[in-house]
Amino acid sequence: MDFNEHTATEAVQNSFSETPDVRLQELLNTLTRHLHAFVREARPSVQEWEQAIEFLTAVGQTCTDTRQEFVLLSDVLGVSMLVETLNEQEGGTESTVLGPFHMVESPPRALGDTIDLVGEAEPCVVSGRVLSTDGTPLPHAEVDVWQCNEKGFYDVQQPGSQPSGNGRGLFRADAEGRFRFRTIVPSHYPIPTDGPVGRLLKATRRHPYRPAHIHFIVQAPGYMPLTTHIFVAGSPYLDSDAVFAVKQGLIVDFAESDDEEAAARNGVQAPFRHAEFDLVLSAERAA
Amino acid sequence: MDFNEHTATEAVQNSFSETPDVRLQELLNTLTRHLHAFVREARPSVQEWEQAIEFLTAVGQTCTDTRQEFVLLSDVLGVSMLVETLNEQEGGTESTVLGPFHMVESPPRALGDTIDLVGEAEPCVVSGRVLSTDGTPLPHAEVDVWQCNEKGFYDVQQPGSQPSGNGRGLFRADAEGRFRFRTIVPSHYPIPTDGPVGRLLKATRRHPYRPAHIHFIVQAPGYMPLTTHIFVAGSPYLDSDAVFAVKQGLIVDFAESDDEEAAARNGVQAPFRHAEFDLVLSAERAA
Repeated sequence: MDFNEHTATEAVQNSFSETPDVRLQELLNTLTRHLHAFVREARPSVQEWEQAIEFLTAVGQTCTDTRQEFVLLSDVLGVSMLVETLNEQEGGTESTVLGPFHMVESPPRALGDTIDLVGEAEPCVVSGRVLSTDGTPLPHAEVDVWQCNEKGFYDVQQPGSQPSGNGRGLFRADAEGRFRFRTIVPSHYPIPTDGPVGRLLKATRRHPYRPAHIHFIVQAPGYMPLTTHIFVAGSPYLDSDAVFAVKQGLIVDFAESDDEEAAARNGVQAPFRHAEFDLVLSAERAA
Repeated sequence: MDFNEHTATEAVQNSFSETPDVRLQELLNTLTRHLHAFVREARPSVQEWEQAIEFLTAVGQTCTDTRQEFVLLSDVLGVSMLVETLNEQEGGTESTVLGPFHMVESPPRALGDTIDLVGEAEPCVVSGRVLSTDGTPLPHAEVDVWQCNEKGFYDVQQPGSQPSGNGRGLFRADAEGRFRFRTIVPSHYPIPTDGPVGRLLKATRRHPYRPAHIHFIVQAPGYMPLTTHIFVAGSPYLDSDAVFAVKQGLIVDFAESDDEEAAARNGVQAPFRHAEFDLVLSAERAA
């Protein structure tokens, strides 16, 4: 029978019937059904479909070693957050999107080190513990951190003016699961608007801003890895993050402190800001 | 309320609420609903979603001035054909996909000219009429033609060994709507398999072949443009086209002929092949 509106989905699904990888076949069959349902409902003209193809091509071609425009597209359509949410660890710290800026490996640093290689903004101490859901500290947990600077730019966005590795650090918690590092308070910032995703936001009158945050990937043997942010309380755009990543439980107070003794203990000068919170991992499920 | 599995779609749709272009807003809202439904049902792991992003990025980065891998992806998922089918002209010749090889303008040629600039394979005459659905000839209709050679390659795939414009021609029908050109019988061929779409076909054990065909775009003032192929009767893969484009009504006999007089009249030597068919356009609908 000819390929038509009614036979299309089955014809394409049949073409995948010899796929050796059962999960791949399931994903492709489900994708085909939903993609065709979208096309049947939206009824794009041939020209509209050509525009969609051109848009997706431009998204791919905007990607470089230090820029991932398809992650950005997935982010602004809420898909990255949806995938994170569906994979969330039960009982642990809430997860949120990886984002497009974890493109380089964070340099290993010692506890207490600073990730601010420039030193021009107000110092900030970030500290806390890595715990299991029952409150047990997780000794020597790995804490991978990355953030933008006080102007809202990641190091990879300003290779000329920021040192490589600025705002990034790979830490190992101590024997009591404690982590501590120095930094500066990150700024809210716009996601890159000079590519096709920026054009999409402009065409839909959406602002491109993300509230201020620090990224974390936390890992410990026997526990599920956690990808999350902490958000700076009081930052603009907490209620309209361009990538839908804010969860109320991830907003942390970056408190101003004049405590000279605490400043000295943390290797900074008062006044300084201090964010203190725990990162909670769920145990791996038995296979 | 936090972004979660249940609030995700509404949150993203709300972000599009200020879109000035009503059609764009409708397309994005429909896309968001179907895309999120796919993710909710398929429940991709974070790693699977990363693989999907990497795949789409590679598809975009495989595109060049002479190669459109996203069209190819749309083709092998049956989406291009579905879009064509939903936009089909009623009563006219059936349409089928544009395909990824209409990337250069066809050189204007006179009726009867050959589009085979090499001259090494058996000659073929293609002729017919451009008609309206009531059988009225459409004088001076534009007939844009492109095809691969007898080995299955388009000119743009072999810039070193095929002359530019080989297998392509832009013709204007005569005052009675008749068109006629010389060529060679195209071969069935594999779609390009050295990119990410090829890897998808391999992973799903799908063959990459398309049955032999000649592409047409036909236009006449006051009529809907027609994008179609004619398929060579008897070609392999007529029942399993990698891009789902075959319709029974588009299969044409490329008859062998020994008729010396007909050969001379058409500017070829016997024996030759001859395909004769009409291309029927529907009138534009009133606005």
